[in-house]
Amino acid sequence: MLTDVEIAQGATLERIADIAERLGLSEEEYEPYGHDKAKISLQVLDRLADRPDGKLVLVTAINPTAAGEGKTTTNVGLSMALNRIGAQAITTLREPSLGPCFGMKGGAAGGGYAQVVPMDDINLHFTGDFHAITSAHNLLAALLDNSLHQGNPLRLDPKRITWKRVLDMNDRALRNIVIGMGKKGDGVVRESGFEITVASEIMAALCLATGLEDLKERFGRIVVGYTVDKEPVTAGQLEAAGAMAMLMKDAIKPNLVQTLENTPAIIHGGPFANIAHGNNSVLATRTALKLADYVVTEAGFGADLGAEKFFDIVAPAGGLRPDAAVIVATVRALKLNGGAQKSELGTEDVEALGAGLVNLEQHLENLAKFGVPVVVALNRFPSDTDAELDLVRERCGQLGVDVALSEVFTRGGEGGEDLARAVVELCERGSDYAPLYAEGTGLREKIETIATQIYRADGVDFAPTARTQLSELTEAGYGELPVCMAKTQSSFSDDPTLLGAPRGFTITVRELVVNAGAGFVVALTGDIMRMPGLPKVPAALGMDIAEDGTITGLS
Amino acid sequence: MLTDVEIAQGATLERIADIAERLGLSEEEYEPYGHDKAKISLQVLDRLADRPDGKLVLVTAINPTAAGEGKTTTNVGLSMALNRIGAQAITTLREPSLGPCFGMKGGAAGGGYAQVVPMDDINLHFTGDFHAITSAHNLLAALLDNSLHQGNPLRLDPKRITWKRVLDMNDRALRNIVIGMGKKGDGVVRESGFEITVASEIMAALCLATGLEDLKERFGRIVVGYTVDKEPVTAGQLEAAGAMAMLMKDAIKPNLVQTLENTPAIIHGGPFANIAHGNNSVLATRTALKLADYVVTEAGFGADLGAEKFFDIVAPAGGLRPDAAVIVATVRALKLNGGAQKSELGTEDVEALGAGLVNLEQHLENLAKFGVPVVVALNRFPSDTDAELDLVRERCGQLGVDVALSEVFTRGGEGGEDLARAVVELCERGSDYAPLYAEGTGLREKIETIATQIYRADGVDFAPTARTQLSELTEAGYGELPVCMAKTQSSFSDDPTLLGAPRGFTITVRELVVNAGAGFVVALTGDIMRMPGLPKVPAALGMDIAEDGTITGLS
Repeated sequence: MLTDVEIAQGATLERIADIAERLGLSEEEYEPYGHDKAKISLQVLDRLADRPDGKLVLVTAINPTAAGEGKTTTNVGLSMALNRIGAQAITTLREPSLGPCFGMKGGAAGGGYAQVVPMDDINLHFTGDFHAITSAHNLLAALLDNSLHQGNPLRLDPKRITWKRVLDMNDRALRNIVIGMGKKGDGVVRESGFEITVASEIMAALCLATGLEDLKERFGRIVVGYTVDKEPVTAGQLEAAGAMAMLMKDAIKPNLVQTLENTPAIIHGGPFANIAHGNNSVLATRTALKLADYVVTEAGFGADLGAEKFFDIVAPAGGLRPDAAVIVATVRALKLNGGAQKSELGTEDVEALGAGLVNLEQHLENLAKFGVPVVVALNRFPSDTDAELDLVRERCGQLGVDVALSEVFTRGGEGGEDLARAVVELCERGSDYAPLYAEGTGLREKIETIATQIYRADGVDFAPTARTQLSELTEAGYGELPVCMAKTQSSFSDDPTLLGAPRGFTITVRELVVNAGAGFVVALTGDIMRMPGLPKVPAALGMDIAEDGTITGLS
Repeated sequence: MLTDVEIAQGATLERIADIAERLGLSEEEYEPYGHDKAKISLQVLDRLADRPDGKLVLVTAINPTAAGEGKTTTNVGLSMALNRIGAQAITTLREPSLGPCFGMKGGAAGGGYAQVVPMDDINLHFTGDFHAITSAHNLLAALLDNSLHQGNPLRLDPKRITWKRVLDMNDRALRNIVIGMGKKGDGVVRESGFEITVASEIMAALCLATGLEDLKERFGRIVVGYTVDKEPVTAGQLEAAGAMAMLMKDAIKPNLVQTLENTPAIIHGGPFANIAHGNNSVLATRTALKLADYVVTEAGFGADLGAEKFFDIVAPAGGLRPDAAVIVATVRALKLNGGAQKSELGTEDVEALGAGLVNLEQHLENLAKFGVPVVVALNRFPSDTDAELDLVRERCGQLGVDVALSEVFTRGGEGGEDLARAVVELCERGSDYAPLYAEGTGLREKIETIATQIYRADGVDFAPTARTQLSELTEAGYGELPVCMAKTQSSFSDDPTLLGAPRGFTITVRELVVNAGAGFVVALTGDIMRMPGLPKVPAALGMDIAEDGTITGLS
């Protein structure tokens, strides 16, 4: 089989203008960025306000393991398969981050015969959205430090400034820095740091905003630090929101590209799935729902993080009503969850699989709590045996859930037709979607509800700092916000080594951070890396571009 | 009269596809970025290799003063005027920097009825070129610090690292920072800093490169610091050049926009005019020369910096043969040079004008040394009196130079027809262009030649550091490179308060810096600010965007 890059570079792309036309967009409703990418105007949402939405399908997964599950591949493949069986579909995806491309991983645009293209562009600067976010974020930082330097009229406490700077680069040396050194004119000395752009609250706010005005209001609410009297100071008080929104004037528009089979793909925004909500922009999803009968979107990490946040944060913020969910699993990853060694995943091991299936089962039970019908997409590997596949079917069947085998990686849309038919059938069944907790629930109770009902913890320990913050944030009026759990993706618990479906543990909440612009309170259950580093031999060293523009080493 | 923004927002733009077609570009030779901007493929240069170049006209100016000279306005206006008199013209310009927009100045895209549009986009992210430069620059920094962290195989001396990081933001607090703090995994502690993106050597290299392969080779030659044995360490040794070039795959393509009168404008690159050469990219100029009969390009600051560098660095690097030069002056600025107060520039003052004209005269004498015929473009203000205009004509006439009045700011291309006719006549006269110093001249002699012949200094004092560097750089093989003088733009001397045509001074060269990737050695004659700050009330505070996308406060 060819490599991902070879497949992507050999793809026959339709002109983006033709795809836009096929979606019924007028020339004024999209802006081409080259011949293969376009931005879609938000005016489309106004024009089609009265058109009924398409069906919304969430693709999520079991807890990720080193074996890989192929969630994006399944998302892309499912959208292609839906089109093949006559159900007009669009896939919506997160934009990949540039920085990590230079480290360990290659690009992030699906794999095999289920990719979005142009892969090189999508993985590099794409249409500049992340650079706009970097600019808006760092403008706020510059205005903040300038306010400190110019007499500090807002009485900001330099020790309580929470707003850092961002770059879309894996740069460990910038994690902890001292700024403002030098001479009198060179600013105020204080400790600070850089995070990677996808960790920016601007990213989360963009992805939850319903329009430019809403985005600007979100920017105004961003808390950048606290006064010497511990009062929150916002970007609005720094008069930064207008200029920040201006910098986002194009970045707010969803990007249109295509899959290898020319299915329209809308790729927009890419927040972290731990400290943020891990889903593409609400505007992308809403636009897609107006343009297609089926929209396949994806949540980050496993369903304990990604799906929970999609149902509890994203859907309420965006006014979305999910119709069905697909949970991606592989026999190999389930065996890892059941205690098998990574080196032995190619050998039949029904016992390990049986033990590991508890992970999938808990996710299935959890998804039922949101009232959304679900199907398992089992990404098939050549090493999977009939006995193993039968066991997965049997155990899921006991929960009333169907399993569809997916071979989109090797066969493209054709390999996902069974899954597509199952999804269409689910969508016809109807959804009773509702968030896990009701409006008006307090911060502590929201965290406890997620921890006990989704993670199945015995309870939540709040560290002393977190306890203080619970009351401070509630007092400051942030208690109504939903909670965004920052937890390891590897386990239902906050201990990444506890695979399967652990029991008898508690979740420790170390710290709470209000992201008032994004519109949630982050509960940190451990150290979450917000600025990755480069490995000993960075992938960048193997990258090159020829005079004719051919790129090597990117994926 | 309407404001610049009102004029720009009221402009009737031609679709960029139509302008591209008018230039004879095929659909494969340009990529639209929206409907008003496009990138031009470098393949155009191959296809038209045999077509004779158009005439190349350099727009330069007297030393800039607080009164403003209107160089970009003249450049844009001249290109429109040339088209009006039947000479098919393209203007080439530098891209404006984003960061300074949020500080004191507004945008930089001409003024009045001589602007390039879409003004908002050009001043904001435009087509992402500067963001690509920021990424490539900071990737090199991250790889460098990662090499330090991962055992330092190149034996880099952390105290001798010269490569900093960049952001396109006015952020004084980042000028001097300590990086690598925190825990063991957080990099190596050392002092460093950020500069503004336009100060990046990547910018200078981009603007002097003749193609992607050349750009990659330039990247490989960039000196990032020195070993403990004082040997230069390059980006090539860090194996960074391929990935950096990959990040520049689109940024290397010149951008096509238009003037208010729909004249094609190619805007590409924007290096500083002190620590770098201050001219748009060679690729933009070369592309324009293949597509038009007349190309009007612009050099930064006054002719002592901008024109000298254009003739001694840019033209040799790009294989360009300038046909004519336009030097922009105003009666007001000349009066300031002659000792008038800024508050009294509206009053006739023939004496001050007479005294200040020495500045223009010295520039005219200097331009003659490069063998390029020149005309003075006098940007007319309502307050200019006949006696003042006559004096300018008389004094220039004594040097055999014509003066053309320009009113493009208030009248657009129509107000520049006299100037356009003068330029056409100059171009027919023929040029004996040659750089100031011959190949093979040593670094010290090159600096002394510029200082004595252009600045009219009595000589050059080299500080002890600079003397050491003269021999070290020559030994390391960098003596063949041209010299890029980093000097105040306000005076021929290195003292910004000495206006007019000072005599009896020496130039002090404090330090030399090799920019081997750009391909020049920078001679620093004073403190050059490489990271601006924000003022007490930043322009950003007055910026806003409405739901319909209308921007206010940008200019």
